Amino acid sequence: MTKNVGLIGLGAMGAGMASSLRRHGCQVHVFDVRADAAQAFAAAGGVACASPAELATRCNVIVSVVVNAAQTEAVLFGDHGCAPAMTRGSVFIMCSTVDPNWSIATEARLAKLGILYIDAPISGGAAKAASGQMTMMTAATPAAYAAAGDLLDAMAANVYRLGDKAGAGSKVKIINQLLAGVHIAAAAEAMALGLREGVNPDALYDVITHSAGNSWMFENRMAHVLKGDYTPLSAVDIFVKDLGLVLDVARASKFPLPLSSTAHQMFMQASTSGFAREDDSAVIKIFPGIELPQKA
Amino acid sequence: MTKNVGLIGLGAMGAGMASSLRRHGCQVHVFDVRADAAQAFAAAGGVACASPAELATRCNVIVSVVVNAAQTEAVLFGDHGCAPAMTRGSVFIMCSTVDPNWSIATEARLAKLGILYIDAPISGGAAKAASGQMTMMTAATPAAYAAAGDLLDAMAANVYRLGDKAGAGSKVKIINQLLAGVHIAAAAEAMALGLREGVNPDALYDVITHSAGNSWMFENRMAHVLKGDYTPLSAVDIFVKDLGLVLDVARASKFPLPLSSTAHQMFMQASTSGFAREDDSAVIKIFPGIELPQKA
Repeated sequence: MTKNVGLIGLGAMGAGMASSLRRHGCQVHVFDVRADAAQAFAAAGGVACASPAELATRCNVIVSVVVNAAQTEAVLFGDHGCAPAMTRGSVFIMCSTVDPNWSIATEARLAKLGILYIDAPISGGAAKAASGQMTMMTAATPAAYAAAGDLLDAMAANVYRLGDKAGAGSKVKIINQLLAGVHIAAAAEAMALGLREGVNPDALYDVITHSAGNSWMFENRMAHVLKGDYTPLSAVDIFVKDLGLVLDVARASKFPLPLSSTAHQMFMQASTSGFAREDDSAVIKIFPGIELPQKA
Repeated sequence: MTKNVGLIGLGAMGAGMASSLRRHGCQVHVFDVRADAAQAFAAAGGVACASPAELATRCNVIVSVVVNAAQTEAVLFGDHGCAPAMTRGSVFIMCSTVDPNWSIATEARLAKLGILYIDAPISGGAAKAASGQMTMMTAATPAAYAAAGDLLDAMAANVYRLGDKAGAGSKVKIINQLLAGVHIAAAAEAMALGLREGVNPDALYDVITHSAGNSWMFENRMAHVLKGDYTPLSAVDIFVKDLGLVLDVARASKFPLPLSSTAHQMFMQASTSGFAREDDSAVIKIFPGIELPQKA
């Protein structure tokens, strides 16, 4: 396995992935715009770098775990970006949720520099990232997989290999976000109707989670609503962004998405009503005329 | 346990429930508008009756498993209906998916005749009905439960007791249908986008069913789409009806349901496009510009 690996973005997911790589015997070099985050990681074993460019001089594989395509652009091609500094044959692993067409274009731009690329969005949350139990939805050329496929398996329990060029990883990730976003909004709508009709919310949760109306998101997010706890594990604004990406992808081929567009409107209403940074289950707060369970 | 039990409506669910009651040692008297269905059940052990009224002279518990509130009205109060013929203290178990406000009103109307009532919508499909593994979402007075609660447990593995008067059973069932309908439409929308974007549909199914975007309905119904098999296990028009009921309930208290109303429009579009009697997963056929998997 490649011993020197770079990782950019020590957020909720990236920090866990960096730890997984270290646990698998890699020397992990990290960069984060918050220098203290990189220093803290280095203190526990690892190397803190001052820029993506510095990372590129030390490692021939770089894992990017930043928020979106714009930040990935900056990491690659901005001031002190890594792309110009990466050696030919090295690999850039792109883990953000992005427009698949942007990911396809990025593979082509890096190919011109002789850099291999893996389209590799991630899923599963911070706890699974830290334990190496997360999921990666990947697509790449055989050469890129040959150069860095072992590192994917070091970071994730489920590594889906979905195609022989960039795109399919980001497409499947976007479609997962479509369903996740619609299901959270639908769970909120269902629980809100129950409250409106005077149904006991705990009993409703019990029945639905044992019935055909269940979803992974209903079971997970409505537990937050029952506790009245909107501490953000993933915030409302994440779905304003991700359902926006879903709609961008479909608009490019003039494809109608009635439920996704409706759910997007619901998350935007929640965001601008003051719940942007609350847990995404706070989308239930857009429903009028109900009394939500309060935090004990 | 009450030995003589009447059951009205030998459809996909009712036939299985009648068998479950027989398996538990009941003498089961049946009525169906299709006389041959009742005769066939009687031939295997049981009693075929010519009308709901005749059933009422033989049994002090009647289980009604017809399609909707209108049919239940006919069973109770139509020509040869059972309500006038039922003795005081007997029990009517209402298993259809109906407007909860209608169920509440029906309890009151029967109470005036001295007839007990159990609000008891069912869920789980024909196979679980036949094996006694289905779910009942019930609400009733303690007197009604005391008189016939044992029969509920004979028909269903999961009997939720949700309140001490009619209403909560039908409300929870309606909310389950809200989620089921939205999830089927969302699954179709997600799979359609995947096909539009050139994603392999089997790979997409594999990833989603192992990810946070999964729902019970995605997993169940998209298997039909992958096989290209739209044989109706539950038809498009069932969700035209059930999401219509959901919207009726919410309209009565002026409560907005953005996703349910969107999904209802999708099922209506599918119905009038010629897919009314196909499997409800045929809602995916409303999406233009894609090629669906064909039956092998």
